[in-house]
Amino acid sequence: MEIQLWREILDPYSLAVNELIVKFNHIIEEYRRKGSYSPIELVTGRVKTISSILEKAQKKNIALDDIEEKIDDIAGIRIICQFVEDIYKVVDIIRHRSDMTIKSEKDYIEKMKKSGYRSYHIIVYYDVETLKGSKRLQVEIQIRTLAMNFWATIEHSLQYKYKQNIPEHIRKRLSSAAEAILILDREMSVVRDEIMDAQNSFTIKANM
Amino acid sequence: MEIQLWREILDPYSLAVNELIVKFNHIIEEYRRKGSYSPIELVTGRVKTISSILEKAQKKNIALDDIEEKIDDIAGIRIICQFVEDIYKVVDIIRHRSDMTIKSEKDYIEKMKKSGYRSYHIIVYYDVETLKGSKRLQVEIQIRTLAMNFWATIEHSLQYKYKQNIPEHIRKRLSSAAEAILILDREMSVVRDEIMDAQNSFTIKANM
Amino acid sequence: MEIQLWREILDPYSLAVNELIVKFNHIIEEYRRKGSYSPIELVTGRVKTISSILEKAQKKNIALDDIEEKIDDIAGIRIICQFVEDIYKVVDIIRHRSDMTIKSEKDYIEKMKKSGYRSYHIIVYYDVETLKGSKRLQVEIQIRTLAMNFWATIEHSLQYKYKQNIPEHIRKRLSSAAEAILILDREMSVVRDEIMDAQNSFTIKANM
Amino acid sequence: MEIQLWREILDPYSLAVNELIVKFNHIIEEYRRKGSYSPIELVTGRVKTISSILEKAQKKNIALDDIEEKIDDIAGIRIICQFVEDIYKVVDIIRHRSDMTIKSEKDYIEKMKKSGYRSYHIIVYYDVETLKGSKRLQVEIQIRTLAMNFWATIEHSLQYKYKQNIPEHIRKRLSSAAEAILILDREMSVVRDEIMDAQNSFTIKANM
Repeated sequence: MEIQLWREILDPYSLAVNELIVKFNHIIEEYRRKGSYSPIELVTGRVKTISSILEKAQKKNIALDDIEEKIDDIAGIRIICQFVEDIYKVVDIIRHRSDMTIKSEKDYIEKMKKSGYRSYHIIVYYDVETLKGSKRLQVEIQIRTLAMNFWATIEHSLQYKYKQNIPEHIRKRLSSAAEAILILDREMSVVRDEIMDAQNSFTIKANM
Repeated sequence: MEIQLWREILDPYSLAVNELIVKFNHIIEEYRRKGSYSPIELVTGRVKTISSILEKAQKKNIALDDIEEKIDDIAGIRIICQFVEDIYKVVDIIRHRSDMTIKSEKDYIEKMKKSGYRSYHIIVYYDVETLKGSKRLQVEIQIRTLAMNFWATIEHSLQYKYKQNIPEHIRKRLSSAAEAILILDREMSVVRDEIMDAQNSFTIKANM
Repeated sequence: MEIQLWREILDPYSLAVNELIVKFNHIIEEYRRKGSYSPIELVTGRVKTISSILEKAQKKNIALDDIEEKIDDIAGIRIICQFVEDIYKVVDIIRHRSDMTIKSEKDYIEKMKKSGYRSYHIIVYYDVETLKGSKRLQVEIQIRTLAMNFWATIEHSLQYKYKQNIPEHIRKRLSSAAEAILILDREMSVVRDEIMDAQNSFTIKANM
Repeated sequence: MEIQLWREILDPYSLAVNELIVKFNHIIEEYRRKGSYSPIELVTGRVKTISSILEKAQKKNIALDDIEEKIDDIAGIRIICQFVEDIYKVVDIIRHRSDMTIKSEKDYIEKMKKSGYRSYHIIVYYDVETLKGSKRLQVEIQIRTLAMNFWATIEHSLQYKYKQNIPEHIRKRLSSAAEAILILDREMSVVRDEIMDAQNSFTIKANM
């Protein structure tokens, strides 16, 4: 497929990502305006690169024509929370929105992956408007705590480096780290209630 | 002091913060362009609010005329790293720059505060250009890991809520959390070398 | 009305403005990706300040409870085009979108205001999603050329200074300027067709 | 030359552009904070693309090793003003800054180019800090009114399309347009004094 055709395909996905970043960031503002604690700490997003799409298609034996249907994370939104409880609050907010429809959910927090990976994944259908008319897309929303994100970021780099074959001794380190994060998230949850009513926003950006 | 006068005083500090965010973000780009690992993960900054400045001045018995000299964190930059080792790499980069002069350094990582707080603090002198000419300012640069930042953010909220008198049982939770972070940072350090040579940037934003 | 209540009212309008800026900017990108000329050159937006809203309510004798219904420019989007013809192309694009519904249109280009003001105004209904559910808002979209915008900006400043009573000699200058802009826009329209097929984007930002 | 090497060369120029955009935008803020009229309306910047650099090098017979010395617009800043008089005010501000040194100035406003092009060009030396140490670069600063910018943008597109050979009948249209802009700028200058003291900022963004 030509690069120009790829760009045409991916273009609406980048629009979806930009719109959703604006929308989820606005939720943070809505909470802060009320002077209350926001369950969302940070929102990021990306469109999958062409090479990652091709790699995934090959690995999963997906025909080029089925890519948009079968690869459901071409558009990805990541929502970072401070506490584990916040994740379920965010899931609840997403479930009640009328501008997106949930296709599926996976709770890798309750049921951690063998590797130690934890996150909540939601696939939604979301409509964007293009010059050719309206188009319905799939978007993957990943919700996780700062600590889970830190772990996943590092594991991703190692997967990339070792092409899925991470050596045993490193795998063990990752496991211990995942363990420490479980403890950290648990200790922090206890103080969460103490913070919930604080009339004060405490974002990465704001509170130096 | 009138609000207009305060704005005039704080204006150059906000310029300094904006310039330094551009400069430190460019360091991330420099590393990535070379295809190598960046010791800086994220840069944020802020100018202290007027009310925080007044509060600090009162607490430390500082006369209004001495504020700019004696309050050295009116402009604040925060640099977030992935690994403890990265912090010292960043300190080294700052020491070698010719566009800022180090006034003082405090290593709260080697020597953790009693509360559990860990971070590396540097006060620098930095020149900005205003319509009235050049002006030398003090800027505080805080360098810490993601996990240390998470802890400090939560502790800050609790300090704010309890006006410095955090109850004992919460203080204990914060201590356990600080402990878990120490372990986490230690486990992660071991895998750092594995990642250093990966031809791949792994930022919060980029690697979904 | 309390400031906190005002913020609650205005909050969804700022979300609408942010979403629409993303959406109209994406149209520019869609054209450029295809390598063709974009009828939109620049998109800006703003939410009316509380004091402007109050002033308008007083002047037009609007009760506080009717403000959201009767003041239709609380949220404002401005679309800047290079050529007069582009304005009508943009109007056409807006008419065909399914994510907004046109309430009314006013063509002050065909029918210039006495002052010399020229612009195309569209009021649309647009839905945003808040924590309390979905909300339908009015948004004013102003479409004009760069030259018309320049004139309107200056006239606005003079209106503001003279509180609607611009002295006669200045009013005359504004008229001559409006005349020069009419000529300019006409001369430029002739070269528009020459540019339409150029495989090159020529934005304020891009082409130095 | 390899793409990687080009990136290494161009990297400091993009840093310079980003720093200067922050600095010139801050001048706007300084004026607005004082509640007075800003001579700068808008600031943009760009780094020349590799292909444009190569094209210029070939056309002017510049050896690859001399590119950084002889091509003085690799980094470009464009400052847009509302009135012709503002341009000279901005030139004056630049002359008095201590963070850049003027290498040369060209006044194409007093002395319009044959094509009708008008702008004030300044080449400055500006220092940036890289991981390898400090580096002195050349930056071209173009200062012009909104109307001049409009004209130059369109002429640039036509130059690009006709590869420098714009047909005579189009050239004539451009001349008439340049004429209309001269008149427009003259009429507007008269009202400038009226605006100078208005306690109100009137930017493209702010005054809808």
